[in-house]
Amino acid sequence: MLRTTLSGFPELLPSDRLTELAILDSLRATFECHGFAPLETRAVETLESLAKKGETSKEVYGITRLNAEHGAKDAELGLHFDLTVPFARYVVENAGHLTFPFKRYQIQKVWRGERPQEGRYREFTQADIDVVGQDALPAHYETDLPLVMAEALGALNIGPVVIQVNNRRVCQGFYEALGIADIAGTLRMIDKLDKIGPEAVERGLVDDVGLNTSQADRALRLAEITGTEAAEVEDAVRALDVRGELLDIGLAELGAVLTEAGAQHPGAVRAVLKIARGLDYYTGSVYETLLVGHEDLGSIGGGGRYDSLATSGKRTFPGVGISIGVTRLLTRVLQMHRATRSVPTCVLVAVTSEEERARSNRAAAALRARGIPTDVAPKAAKFGKQIRHADRLGIPYVLFPGENTELKDIRTGEQYAIDVHTWTPPQADLTAVDLSEYRAEQA
Amino acid sequence: MLRTTLSGFPELLPSDRLTELAILDSLRATFECHGFAPLETRAVETLESLAKKGETSKEVYGITRLNAEHGAKDAELGLHFDLTVPFARYVVENAGHLTFPFKRYQIQKVWRGERPQEGRYREFTQADIDVVGQDALPAHYETDLPLVMAEALGALNIGPVVIQVNNRRVCQGFYEALGIADIAGTLRMIDKLDKIGPEAVERGLVDDVGLNTSQADRALRLAEITGTEAAEVEDAVRALDVRGELLDIGLAELGAVLTEAGAQHPGAVRAVLKIARGLDYYTGSVYETLLVGHEDLGSIGGGGRYDSLATSGKRTFPGVGISIGVTRLLTRVLQMHRATRSVPTCVLVAVTSEEERARSNRAAAALRARGIPTDVAPKAAKFGKQIRHADRLGIPYVLFPGENTELKDIRTGEQYAIDVHTWTPPQADLTAVDLSEYRAEQA
Repeated sequence: MLRTTLSGFPELLPSDRLTELAILDSLRATFECHGFAPLETRAVETLESLAKKGETSKEVYGITRLNAEHGAKDAELGLHFDLTVPFARYVVENAGHLTFPFKRYQIQKVWRGERPQEGRYREFTQADIDVVGQDALPAHYETDLPLVMAEALGALNIGPVVIQVNNRRVCQGFYEALGIADIAGTLRMIDKLDKIGPEAVERGLVDDVGLNTSQADRALRLAEITGTEAAEVEDAVRALDVRGELLDIGLAELGAVLTEAGAQHPGAVRAVLKIARGLDYYTGSVYETLLVGHEDLGSIGGGGRYDSLATSGKRTFPGVGISIGVTRLLTRVLQMHRATRSVPTCVLVAVTSEEERARSNRAAAALRARGIPTDVAPKAAKFGKQIRHADRLGIPYVLFPGENTELKDIRTGEQYAIDVHTWTPPQADLTAVDLSEYRAEQA
Repeated sequence: MLRTTLSGFPELLPSDRLTELAILDSLRATFECHGFAPLETRAVETLESLAKKGETSKEVYGITRLNAEHGAKDAELGLHFDLTVPFARYVVENAGHLTFPFKRYQIQKVWRGERPQEGRYREFTQADIDVVGQDALPAHYETDLPLVMAEALGALNIGPVVIQVNNRRVCQGFYEALGIADIAGTLRMIDKLDKIGPEAVERGLVDDVGLNTSQADRALRLAEITGTEAAEVEDAVRALDVRGELLDIGLAELGAVLTEAGAQHPGAVRAVLKIARGLDYYTGSVYETLLVGHEDLGSIGGGGRYDSLATSGKRTFPGVGISIGVTRLLTRVLQMHRATRSVPTCVLVAVTSEEERARSNRAAAALRARGIPTDVAPKAAKFGKQIRHADRLGIPYVLFPGENTELKDIRTGEQYAIDVHTWTPPQADLTAVDLSEYRAEQA
């Protein structure tokens, strides 16, 4: 499936790449249908730009010209480790050429020098949507973006998708009202709940972050709260008997997302107050994406609102974005929507003799003119051998050109006369991957 | 157009990225229609693998984990500088899972640490098609591949495309029969003809490569030969009065390509005997691609037959491939097929008041359900302001939802009642880029 001859750098066999392309095409279609503009940024950023988010600097791959001229003054560069930092840089550089709010999607490889392990790669594909405003950004985008991602993931037909949402202001307001000094440290410890469990987190909050037991207890009880109704979530938080202005603002924002998302797409968005997201730049809503039935995969992506990631002197570009890890997603999609063949080819045209290859080429051209992916047999071998070649590749039809052109469906063995200028295969045979159909991966 | 805030690393504005995507989609459609399987290889290769082609090692970007653990034994890695070397490595590694002849296309970024200059970038996109056999590869692929690339480029509607072809065996056989010792050096000097002119090449052949004046003169006269008919080219070579077995083989192979290509696609392929291609691994046909009317752009790509690039012990995987530089091509496509807008959006749904945003969202969802890219106005501003927002983005239609839903074509000012559940825009308005139409770039 995912082949890694170099640890951390997976590659796909052609049939699985066909499935990956079907996923990418489907994501792109949803994003474009919602008006997100396509964007691609260079793979490299200056180390200075990458280092702005300190805690991930350990994961950066630096690049150097191996035979740079003596004394060459190249900028110090590294490969991007996400698509948010490059996007923020791009927006600041090109603000004069963009219309705000600017909605873009971006599907690219990213690189992280992490220790490779199950489900973690050093090179993988991310698909991001973001919207940024100039100086201000309407709050409704904090509802719109998770709903677009839920729709995009829903179109992949891999089962229900839940976008888990929290709001940084709820946590921060709650912690501040409790008198907790180290907000970031508390968030980082709470973020480990799924990995190390509540007892270890509580110990960490007390021993490492410096909370007293009462603070730690209430932080943990906040993290247990979950729900899809604004009132239900607010009541549960209020029951913890903590009051503060920032907490009120956060609860109002979170409630608005739940209410609006629930009206548009019931069940797609759920408040889960343990969601913290490690990155420091989020300031409002934060998201994590779960595939129902694939919880063991963990979060397949996340995002949130950031108000000061992109700034240029007097201007700020507040944004909200959500990203998914396509490579991690692919491992599950392959279990449900395997390609029926390892080539795009729908018809293989047989060759009677090398002298008559031109006739086979003409028949192939006639089919291609109507958009039917067609190949011509590599050699004028015995027909049985040419049919076996098609069979090995999973090509459904073999065409025998001639005065009486005949087509064989090699799945059924049926063979009949056709006219290459009018015949068209059933829609289902035109493409190698159909995301609307379940087709399990073979061992 | 191409924006380079970091020298050598161009980026596009969204409207130009829409055009680039239209090019990539079109190339991919042609390749898949001819049965080429999609492939993507990792961005990195081991330095050992990259160094096999010695003369390009100076262009390689090495990558290192900036904060690798002390004593970590990571493989020495670099970014790939083309897609042929990674493909050859992939074929050897995965031969047991592939069916041969294996046809693949690959569209990816490549990186070269060259000095940036007009039309040369350090990061750019290549589109390659290759076919490799196991132990043997039928000769007809040396005709098929340039014709597929000519068809793919023709579909971009940027004017006539000529694939210039030569055969290494013609040059090598001719040089050997003349008693020239340094074949590779002679090829490399001949390759400079367009850059430095015949006088300088002749001096170089004598002074640097060690030819005598008679050898240099005949090598230059061979390089002047061009034609589309096999007999015409063969006669011109024979007139130089050089004879040899390898030369005969080369002329027969070149003649076969000209004859078969001429029958299938007259004018697409032309023999140009000065074409040498710098890379040492070509063994038969070599190609360079010219856009007629854009000769100043130089070759936008090339390729050829290679018999021993990929080997694994006892097995060899001879191949033939042709590659084009998409980034260079894009600069010309943008002059002829500019996007009509900077977003995929066809319809902007106006918002009467923030309280009624849900109504606008429902109208947008109805349009999207039929594949019409639709956005909702960012704010419930005055209608004039919402229309100006659409206008700035180039969105052709603004929809006013309500009891009497109306649609305004903001190009004509026309406004009429529609039903969001049935209305469909003209096909030409559905996409931002139409490669079949000419639309010149603005200053």
